[in-house]
Amino acid sequence: MQAPSAQRHTEVHFQSGDTVRDIVIGLSDGLTVPFALAAGLSGAIASSRIVVLAGLAEIAAGSIAMGLGGYLAARGDAEHYLSERHREEREIVERAHDEEEEIYEIFEQYNVPRASAQPVLEALKKDPVAWVDFMMRFELGLEEPHANRALRSAVTIAGSYIAGGLVPLLPYMVVANNGDALRLSAVITLIALALFGALKGRFVGTGWLRSALQTVVIGGTAAGAAYILASLLNSHA
Amino acid sequence: MQAPSAQRHTEVHFQSGDTVRDIVIGLSDGLTVPFALAAGLSGAIASSRIVVLAGLAEIAAGSIAMGLGGYLAARGDAEHYLSERHREEREIVERAHDEEEEIYEIFEQYNVPRASAQPVLEALKKDPVAWVDFMMRFELGLEEPHANRALRSAVTIAGSYIAGGLVPLLPYMVVANNGDALRLSAVITLIALALFGALKGRFVGTGWLRSALQTVVIGGTAAGAAYILASLLNSHA
Repeated sequence: MQAPSAQRHTEVHFQSGDTVRDIVIGLSDGLTVPFALAAGLSGAIASSRIVVLAGLAEIAAGSIAMGLGGYLAARGDAEHYLSERHREEREIVERAHDEEEEIYEIFEQYNVPRASAQPVLEALKKDPVAWVDFMMRFELGLEEPHANRALRSAVTIAGSYIAGGLVPLLPYMVVANNGDALRLSAVITLIALALFGALKGRFVGTGWLRSALQTVVIGGTAAGAAYILASLLNSHA
Repeated sequence: MQAPSAQRHTEVHFQSGDTVRDIVIGLSDGLTVPFALAAGLSGAIASSRIVVLAGLAEIAAGSIAMGLGGYLAARGDAEHYLSERHREEREIVERAHDEEEEIYEIFEQYNVPRASAQPVLEALKKDPVAWVDFMMRFELGLEEPHANRALRSAVTIAGSYIAGGLVPLLPYMVVANNGDALRLSAVITLIALALFGALKGRFVGTGWLRSALQTVVIGGTAAGAAYILASLLNSHA
């Protein structure tokens, strides 16, 4: 009877997979914001050259900002983990009594009396590394980040943003008329958002249809708002 | 001796505060991407009206995309937590033996022998709600999300993005010459990035100076890349 349960653990772990999450972050913003910006500008500006220019500048800015942001966030997580770990390593030596009390407190949250928690405490005290591992996970709720996570995270987010962002811009590069380009861009981007949403729904287990609808609504709303705002501003300028 | 330890817990909890994180997400992208986009366009386009138009369209698109994205992410977390919780509630009844084994396995990761873990198991079996709480946290690593988190998250992220995004655009609205506006925009945005980075560093405990330098480098790099890309594209168009 262990097999199904072990399988479930793998699933849960995969669902929160860091790389999948980074691709989702990059793709969802990459498909949405450049699409919305191009749609907004094409409602106000006749030249498709400026729409493409603004779109590419946005992709450059957005991919770098998000990629570097992801890099620093991952490195920050790793440093936070290490510094907390060093503190726990010191504390189980220098303030062993407090740390023992903390273990009792952890178990008391689950109505486990001190007497029942004591054998666990005794076992942990025999293995300082396991004790620190236990405190990291159960007291502080921190998991050890993967090595090289920061660089991989940055490249994954930035690459996904660029890939997503080029989709809505392609029509403006090849179609002369801005209105035609906008319609074509809307069609292919909404299809791409629906496909991406459906795949994302499969991965995170929320159901593909609902997830597809959600990403389409987000992209459509953002683009619609940008379009209306740019049109209004342009007519009053 | 409990006071310092209790204080530390509060600190750790505050560091990962959801609202602070949402403000950081919104502000860091809001200050960076519209700034970089405006800088990129002002290197290629003479009209500050179009730079402002593109910047505002970007702020509308970015704030809605990020806000709705944050809303769905938070709602997805809440649903994931509930569905996993219902599964655990079923399993401790229908597959009690498997769930008991899982508790032993959790403790075995920390070299706690079965005999030492058994009193904890006995205590948990007396309190099914605490048992499920325990499995959610210790087996699955999931914490119960706050109620109304999704809406608050969406509003916080979108509002921070708008507030951040308006800073670099203001000079283009009031200064006639695009080159002058770009210089003024760069100065006030880099100051805002440094202030934001310093405050962020204080909150997350990485040190204000280093955090300030990091946000300035991200914003500067993204803006520089967008500026160079837009200039290159413009000179070849």
